[in-house]
Amino acid sequence: QRILYEICSGIYCLDKRLPPELEIARYLGVSRTVIRDCLSILEREGFISRKQGVGTIINRHVIHVETRMDLEQEFLDMIESTGRQAAIAFTQSEELPADAQMAEQLHVRLGDPILVVRRLITADGVSAIYCIDHIAGQLVAETDYDKSELNAPIFYFLDKRCHEEVYMDLTEVRAIGAEGEVAHALAVPPGSPLLYMDEVGYNFKGDPVLYSREYYRDGILKHTVLRKKI
Amino acid sequence: QRILYEICSGIYCLDKRLPPELEIARYLGVSRTVIRDCLSILEREGFISRKQGVGTIINRHVIHVETRMDLEQEFLDMIESTGRQAAIAFTQSEELPADAQMAEQLHVRLGDPILVVRRLITADGVSAIYCIDHIAGQLVAETDYDKSELNAPIFYFLDKRCHEEVYMDLTEVRAIGAEGEVAHALAVPPGSPLLYMDEVGYNFKGDPVLYSREYYRDGILKHTVLRKKI
Repeated sequence: QRILYEICSGIYCLDKRLPPELEIARYLGVSRTVIRDCLSILEREGFISRKQGVGTIINRHVIHVETRMDLEQEFLDMIESTGRQAAIAFTQSEELPADAQMAEQLHVRLGDPILVVRRLITADGVSAIYCIDHIAGQLVAETDYDKSELNAPIFYFLDKRCHEEVYMDLTEVRAIGAEGEVAHALAVPPGSPLLYMDEVGYNFKGDPVLYSREYYRDGILKHTVLRKKI
Repeated sequence: QRILYEICSGIYCLDKRLPPELEIARYLGVSRTVIRDCLSILEREGFISRKQGVGTIINRHVIHVETRMDLEQEFLDMIESTGRQAAIAFTQSEELPADAQMAEQLHVRLGDPILVVRRLITADGVSAIYCIDHIAGQLVAETDYDKSELNAPIFYFLDKRCHEEVYMDLTEVRAIGAEGEVAHALAVPPGSPLLYMDEVGYNFKGDPVLYSREYYRDGILKHTVLRKKI
């Protein structure tokens, strides 16, 4: 993150290449091994390219991408990074019995209690994302929470009340036509094409800890994926 | 790729963990450094998780994903990996002057010649993907090619006639309603929600070498993205 910052708006912001590992290490006051690991991640995510004899090229076309679908980012940050004002317009929570899809995604039994949190996120006051989060009731370790805690991004609740962290998530992406509750919340005519993301967040051990259904109104975020070969 | 193969259907196919680097290195007959680099990539792409004292966990939920949007894969392979028969139903090519979007994506001037290749890909005989590829005319180094060469995946043409290779691509993903040429090719009613991918392929130096507009009919491929934090 620190190297990315230096590339975007810090000491490397005008450069086409990064200096040698040792020089970055000295400048940031960390070991060369740490820098090497960081550069590996930045390379894999496309921000830089490295080749023996050529050095470390900064890929400005990748740096300038607004919203990277393949990097985890919280909704509010995602919107703010496009220069818009983000807000949670409403949050509504309830406990429901698991339906077939929730049970499958969260590895619980049909009918098990699920904490369901609905949330509308706006960008400059316009409805942008409608999200329905699902957490298995058995995961909520500390049940004496205040409902207002659910107004913050769900990751805080997962951390504080479930002692869980999303290490990675798998998201199925589809195009759907808006209908019912979703069309209403996003204030679009029924049938309008929406990007739908069916997302399961896993902890480090590979257990599902969060299942979200997310609906994105067209024309607000530019969702970009970077692809490389294995 | 080899380690992935061994995890999916080879000697590690029943295991929850991978053995130590040195053991894998010995088994595959390569150096430990090579194995370490491979495991770094597999970890970043979610196939394995590594933690000191715990070892290398195989993430079967990631291994089982059918179509990874964040990994580059050729259309035919993408469809065949879901167990369906893939075919190119038709290819049609022509040279057109660059419009504003082509010029911007391929870094050429408005009106510059562009080789445009339209292609329909079927899965078990059903229209699945309609793709319009664009290559800057100035990139075609060997112009004495036969039109039939464009029937193969576009990457072969890029390699053989343009001496270019796509090192990474940036793809903007949107939900759109089918219309005109696209609705016709995919044989869906106008207005049907489609996943649209606007894709620019870059070579190692970061120059755009391929611009594609891809339309995916719903219900055939399950497009899944893996997300991790930086």
